[in-house]
Amino acid sequence: MTATATTTRYAGPACPIPTADYPTVQLAHGAGGSLSRMLVEKLLLPAFDNPALSVLHDGAVLAAEDLCAAAGASASPGRSTDASMATPSMAALRGGARLAVTTDSFVVKPLFFPGGDIGSLAVHGTLNDLAMCGARPVALTVALIIEEGFAMDDLWRVVTSMRAAAAAAGVPVVTGDTKVVERGKGDGLFINTTGLGVVPAGVDVTPARARPGDAILLSGAIAVHGMAIMSVREGLEFETRLESDSADLGPLVQRILETGGEAVHVLRDPTRGGVASALCEIADSARAGMLLDERALPVPPEVRGACELLGLDPLHVANEGKCIAIVAPEREQAILDAMRSHPSGAQAVLVGRITDRRDGRVVVRSPIGGERILEPLSGEQLPRIC
Amino acid sequence: MTATATTTRYAGPACPIPTADYPTVQLAHGAGGSLSRMLVEKLLLPAFDNPALSVLHDGAVLAAEDLCAAAGASASPGRSTDASMATPSMAALRGGARLAVTTDSFVVKPLFFPGGDIGSLAVHGTLNDLAMCGARPVALTVALIIEEGFAMDDLWRVVTSMRAAAAAAGVPVVTGDTKVVERGKGDGLFINTTGLGVVPAGVDVTPARARPGDAILLSGAIAVHGMAIMSVREGLEFETRLESDSADLGPLVQRILETGGEAVHVLRDPTRGGVASALCEIADSARAGMLLDERALPVPPEVRGACELLGLDPLHVANEGKCIAIVAPEREQAILDAMRSHPSGAQAVLVGRITDRRDGRVVVRSPIGGERILEPLSGEQLPRIC
Repeated sequence: MTATATTTRYAGPACPIPTADYPTVQLAHGAGGSLSRMLVEKLLLPAFDNPALSVLHDGAVLAAEDLCAAAGASASPGRSTDASMATPSMAALRGGARLAVTTDSFVVKPLFFPGGDIGSLAVHGTLNDLAMCGARPVALTVALIIEEGFAMDDLWRVVTSMRAAAAAAGVPVVTGDTKVVERGKGDGLFINTTGLGVVPAGVDVTPARARPGDAILLSGAIAVHGMAIMSVREGLEFETRLESDSADLGPLVQRILETGGEAVHVLRDPTRGGVASALCEIADSARAGMLLDERALPVPPEVRGACELLGLDPLHVANEGKCIAIVAPEREQAILDAMRSHPSGAQAVLVGRITDRRDGRVVVRSPIGGERILEPLSGEQLPRIC
Repeated sequence: MTATATTTRYAGPACPIPTADYPTVQLAHGAGGSLSRMLVEKLLLPAFDNPALSVLHDGAVLAAEDLCAAAGASASPGRSTDASMATPSMAALRGGARLAVTTDSFVVKPLFFPGGDIGSLAVHGTLNDLAMCGARPVALTVALIIEEGFAMDDLWRVVTSMRAAAAAAGVPVVTGDTKVVERGKGDGLFINTTGLGVVPAGVDVTPARARPGDAILLSGAIAVHGMAIMSVREGLEFETRLESDSADLGPLVQRILETGGEAVHVLRDPTRGGVASALCEIADSARAGMLLDERALPVPPEVRGACELLGLDPLHVANEGKCIAIVAPEREQAILDAMRSHPSGAQAVLVGRITDRRDGRVVVRSPIGGERILEPLSGEQLPRIC
């Protein structure tokens, strides 16, 4: 009998997302809003369920014990020395420091935009996810998926931009990978960056620590990255050129942590899905109520104009150089002052507070006093923004 | 003056690859052979130059000091405890254990193939790169780039397959990312997996340790993964169905290390570009001469037949469940016996030896005694094999 080279039939459990409703993946499943969240919660989390993953943070934080358990189980043949313990820096891991890991793929379109490009964005995005875990960056990996026919000069330009962004942060790219797909099977260039960082002892930032009375601080103007990208795509022209706010938030976060210490409860960079999706996710996972003051939200006039033109709510538009810090009220002013003393946080403001409603909802108070419940982004209005 | 939203002009150093010769990226730049290597060495390494990267291994190995330097520089506010030092497992990091990091994107086509799918391949591939650093796996990250319109059922099937492969290795997926690109801008599904592992004290496997007289051991039959994929693409039929050898090599490598200890000098899984490219890379970077005995290379008859039909040299065809071990001669028999005692290494053989020519060349002795210099894969004969 001649067996043909076909694949085996799948006989596992059925897809947990009803395929009658969602037979295929849609752009909105990657837009950072409610459909993205459904895909993660219904399909990905059940598959990969484990304690680190279910925290749903920007990255995973691993205790040193997790690492050592793997190594400790081995036979450890050959030489062994305690010499490294003599260095003072080992005190950090001894004192309960943990390893932070984060991964992101970047599919932004266009690849080059005012204020940055896919390379700098990929470095900043991953550095920021580490920072949001309270981690100091240690290493980056870079994996490229290139479409056949992509200009070699453009590849060099992107790689140069990655180098500059990584060097500015003092973080080495320690390993990488390159794949090429046929013309028409990619879109120029996709980049994955994975980041490793160390969370010092005493730093514990996670949505679960948000508590009633906490101040919600925002490091500056919102919706800038998203509207910079959209203005290029839509060919909009303004008095002032819109530039992406893409930036490494690490130094600002260090200042926040140095000032706030344990009073810093949650950190989050509101990227895909904007400030609305980030706050809704935190509120939901912490079962915390939030009240936002819409008047306090900094939206530059040209960004507001572009949002109105395109029918977008600035709260749903992506940021790549802004940070939300949820902090204990007794330290809020000191932390706000510290943020404002740093160039990346010069426009930092108090935008709201955790309430004692514990309903997982974010309420926005409008300038005329009305209240509405803030929803995360649900559609696909800004695909491929990062 | 109205400024338009254009990007800034690039004014950095010129592309180090002559764009007159290579104006664009070609499929061969991703095929794992000499053009891939040119792209890495001329364009990527100069951009990201640092000691960990320039080792050109399957992954990077970071000393604990590198991690601690990042954490130790911080103010470390708040609580600090030495409690974790009480656990015996900390002895591993204290004794000079290091962290291994590896990243790979998978663009294999078709997504489902005999013996596996893109999901199991992505997990095995990254676990194997960790194993080739002598590391025990600790954590995986998973980043998906999905094409709009991809069947939800197929996504579930892939994710289920990743889960099964990760669970079999006992490694958690600790964080992830999902992006969706428009129809026609991707090819169903691309997956990036990044792996973290711990290299126990005393384990030091790196191409630079290859030395004259060392035995070159191969864990089993070659070219099986590549020909399983190609037989599906080309619609070939054989007496026996060709199944990919995709597998987690971690347990086999543990057995090799437990038996060989410091006598294990180099480990490598010959994936893209096949055994030829892997050996040429090791020979070149170690400036070692190698002599291979072609008769000793295990090539199953149906694989040989398929290779002849398609005009391919089995030495250039990808493997996803095979391992090359370069070991000191005084331990070669013990290591070979240990490999053969494990199911993944039952067909392990001695295929050659490091010579004292130190010319960075791999010479193959044919069954009739002739010698030829082995070249790495140069073309694009097997695009998207992983």
